[in-house]
Amino acid sequence: MSVTVVGSIAFDAIKTPFGERERILGGAATHFSLAASFFTDVRVVGPVGDDFGEAEYAVLRERGVNTDDIELVEGGQTFFWAGEYEYDLNSAKTLDTQLNVFGDFQPKLSEGSRNAELLFLANIQPDLQREVREQCTGAQVAGLDSMNFWIESTRDSLVRTIGMVDILFLNDAELRMLTEEPNLVRAARKVMEMGPRVIVAKQGEYGAALFSEDAFFALPAFPLETVIDPTGAGDSFAGGFLGYLDSAGRSLDEGTLRRAMTYGSTLASFWVEEFGSERGRRLTREEIDERYELFRRITTIESVPTA
Amino acid sequence: MSVTVVGSIAFDAIKTPFGERERILGGAATHFSLAASFFTDVRVVGPVGDDFGEAEYAVLRERGVNTDDIELVEGGQTFFWAGEYEYDLNSAKTLDTQLNVFGDFQPKLSEGSRNAELLFLANIQPDLQREVREQCTGAQVAGLDSMNFWIESTRDSLVRTIGMVDILFLNDAELRMLTEEPNLVRAARKVMEMGPRVIVAKQGEYGAALFSEDAFFALPAFPLETVIDPTGAGDSFAGGFLGYLDSAGRSLDEGTLRRAMTYGSTLASFWVEEFGSERGRRLTREEIDERYELFRRITTIESVPTA
Repeated sequence: MSVTVVGSIAFDAIKTPFGERERILGGAATHFSLAASFFTDVRVVGPVGDDFGEAEYAVLRERGVNTDDIELVEGGQTFFWAGEYEYDLNSAKTLDTQLNVFGDFQPKLSEGSRNAELLFLANIQPDLQREVREQCTGAQVAGLDSMNFWIESTRDSLVRTIGMVDILFLNDAELRMLTEEPNLVRAARKVMEMGPRVIVAKQGEYGAALFSEDAFFALPAFPLETVIDPTGAGDSFAGGFLGYLDSAGRSLDEGTLRRAMTYGSTLASFWVEEFGSERGRRLTREEIDERYELFRRITTIESVPTA
Repeated sequence: MSVTVVGSIAFDAIKTPFGERERILGGAATHFSLAASFFTDVRVVGPVGDDFGEAEYAVLRERGVNTDDIELVEGGQTFFWAGEYEYDLNSAKTLDTQLNVFGDFQPKLSEGSRNAELLFLANIQPDLQREVREQCTGAQVAGLDSMNFWIESTRDSLVRTIGMVDILFLNDAELRMLTEEPNLVRAARKVMEMGPRVIVAKQGEYGAALFSEDAFFALPAFPLETVIDPTGAGDSFAGGFLGYLDSAGRSLDEGTLRRAMTYGSTLASFWVEEFGSERGRRLTREEIDERYELFRRITTIESVPTA
């Protein structure tokens, strides 16, 4: 079993009301890889520049992530993002984006990465996502993330890409935007008609909801008194979700999907407790399973009492 | 066992993208009463004018609601509210508010209403809410609703009122506004320090979360393909919650509170399927218990799999 993720590897400058970091390891593929590594073997694919050094590789390798397909672009600089969060942490204001080596990225996957049983296409240009999907002939299940920018600028390409994957992760607002349907249940159904068997609507501080042909499952976010930095929450969610799914045999049955949702939410809840992936790096599988169980407890409803 | 509710009885004009009603029975106390009536005996207290006729009394009486303490102000007009919802149904735009008889409302409670074991203070001026709380010497448990308007205009009075109740229902944004604390968990804790043992954060389409000294419980909203009119959702939620709580003996233990949350969410989910209380009037306890069970099923997480 193994998971391949293709997406951004980055340096982030992040400011929140609780502090700031001038330059920390970030990027969707990084957050996803670290989170998924608690469940399965992970291969990360993405470009970096000369400024990406041993310290950065070490963060990934310490969690057992295979970095062979990280492509070093000599003379280039790694993708850089600077953002600031307001007091309520709900939305980031982008202060600076430097695509750098990511601007000319053409994914080249090794045989090992192409043969992974599960593929995650993190948020990049939809044409590139399709190229990767076509290369990964070993992938029994493919997951996809995207964003409002691609819905607005390259909708047709994105819809074609959505048609090639099994599980789509989007914010609820993006699902509504994509379908022009304000009702989330109907929006999810419309997107399923484009191809995917499973739609995961990410709802930020409110949790997430999952739709499939015959299942619906919703989970509030784990209640946290300390939320420091939401960067990477969505990608660590997808990493926990798909990492667990791969480890459980990639069946999209209801029980497995519920557990995947819960692991995804659990990983995201740890991620936001510190800057970037700082909490994730110190995390243990034991801590994850403890919080999973706590999560289960605080959402349990008993049967109708027979008075 | 019985519940007294004090609050507005109104005529509403409502426009949503799915239709409109020019003049239907509304008001917080009305929605609450009808919802709670599926679980316990309900007494409704509030003023009406000459325009409130037999047809309106009949709606309440058909559900067994005791209307003896509805105060008819001769020569007066019933409270009137006109509102419009945008396409996403998230927020109402108030088009017209005519306080009418509600402007001079001085609650006068009969002995029967004062002796009810459970009291719900629907959203009215906080001084009035305190007067009612003091009159209701029989109430073992008191619930309170309020709104941003009172937080902004009469915060001190509201805080004193909050100090006299056991269960506070507020939107999550209002809890943050009241405490000036963006983190919901901390906000809930701060409000508990004002007095209430239980805080219910209503989150609209995202469901609701409950905080008590030793419990946390969160529930997504029931997924609906058809949402016609959100008016009364919060009050039907409180009606289902407190009506069940009264029927279950008013213990604030964790299991009872979880079931109360689920019944509240279930009632609200029916309420929004049609205009005003139209769906609620045709509802049966069997339908409620069926949806409760479905709700339980779609939020169930299994234990950590021992792989």
